[in-house]
Amino acid sequence: MEADLQIKALLFDVFGTVVDWRSSIAREVERALGADHPEINGYEFADAWRAKYQPAMERVRKGEREWVKLDELHRDNLLEVLTDYKVAGMDAGQIDDLNFAWHRLSPWPDSVTGLTRLKSKFIIGTLSNGNIALIVKMAKNAGLPWDVVLGAEVARAYKPTPESYLRSAAALSLKPEQCMLVAAHNSDLLAASKTGFKTAFVVRPTEYGPSQDFDIEAEHDYDYIAADFLDLADQLECVK
Amino acid sequence: MEADLQIKALLFDVFGTVVDWRSSIAREVERALGADHPEINGYEFADAWRAKYQPAMERVRKGEREWVKLDELHRDNLLEVLTDYKVAGMDAGQIDDLNFAWHRLSPWPDSVTGLTRLKSKFIIGTLSNGNIALIVKMAKNAGLPWDVVLGAEVARAYKPTPESYLRSAAALSLKPEQCMLVAAHNSDLLAASKTGFKTAFVVRPTEYGPSQDFDIEAEHDYDYIAADFLDLADQLECVK
Repeated sequence: MEADLQIKALLFDVFGTVVDWRSSIAREVERALGADHPEINGYEFADAWRAKYQPAMERVRKGEREWVKLDELHRDNLLEVLTDYKVAGMDAGQIDDLNFAWHRLSPWPDSVTGLTRLKSKFIIGTLSNGNIALIVKMAKNAGLPWDVVLGAEVARAYKPTPESYLRSAAALSLKPEQCMLVAAHNSDLLAASKTGFKTAFVVRPTEYGPSQDFDIEAEHDYDYIAADFLDLADQLECVK
Repeated sequence: MEADLQIKALLFDVFGTVVDWRSSIAREVERALGADHPEINGYEFADAWRAKYQPAMERVRKGEREWVKLDELHRDNLLEVLTDYKVAGMDAGQIDDLNFAWHRLSPWPDSVTGLTRLKSKFIIGTLSNGNIALIVKMAKNAGLPWDVVLGAEVARAYKPTPESYLRSAAALSLKPEQCMLVAAHNSDLLAASKTGFKTAFVVRPTEYGPSQDFDIEAEHDYDYIAADFLDLADQLECVK
């Protein structure tokens, strides 16, 4: 048989690319803590929490910590941020509930419509560092119509390790070249492209707030560059 | 926190419970082989192919063969059946295409509507021995609206080993008691119940053809017994 290298699956980064984590977390933080701590700015708290994300995964990637789900890393990081903000007295259930704010992130306005169009022509799946339970609950809550949940937990490897991409393609019995990563982050796309994935950069210029000064344009030679998922669906000639 | 033991996820056996593998395989076999081999009865061929399913998995379960995806077991079994039927001369692409008939199985008439209703209230996922690519392609082809694909490949264990159920629940960060297996097979449900899963027996009395004389009634004390997925949705009070 001739090798079929057409794109079969679009695999999506999720935090920042599909959902607006910063506004969602800020809203939930202010709801959970605002009554007792009116001094807390939810956006700053969200940024502080997110800033601990890469270092926590890096310990797992380096083998300094055994594999754990992202929910667990998020919770450890939350405890640190609560200490930094001098928030005390929350019980385990309240901490879990705030931690599960990551299960309730809101999609960008074009995400559900765009994914639905893209799903008509391609397998659409997640290739996120989020664990399966997190991604499934987020999808139920936000109406994200995934065909399949892949990524870190299925691959047992956090992005941007090569294994995280290669094992996700292998789970679909596809070659890397038959998969395209869709992401708003240059580093993620560059790592995926090195494993053979095709790449689509979608611009999310306010993921980190109004003064974001990185990942606001494509820094490498991607297969597609799109303003949002609707633009990507247009370029990939998916039904309206 | 009080333990929450309400059912959160319905996890489905697929072959026979959600899709009618026997009629689908018979149809594809006759389409692929009928012109050159009018003597072949598609249903008998399907039964012969399926008869090799449990023995092939048993070798993996016993550790006599390392983990492989079901697609690979199906292909090995197909080669044996083709030899038994004295079918020769197919090339690798034709064999693959016939093997992927398992990716194109037709759902029972109530499956899509029933799953859509059940999805409104529960996480719905697969807990099948089918590999991820097989289940995803079947779902795309048949319109099965899964929230998540779990089961043998995610668990790296074939049913009915305890690990196949326990690791599927763990992937959702759920206790076994928060998951219910939905299946048409007494042996599958009994094994799941021993791990703590809740159980729902759905009767598929013609899965093995009109003279099926097993799995036509519930043989154990299940949480639910249903005539089909619509009946199950009624019993679980899901929206119409």
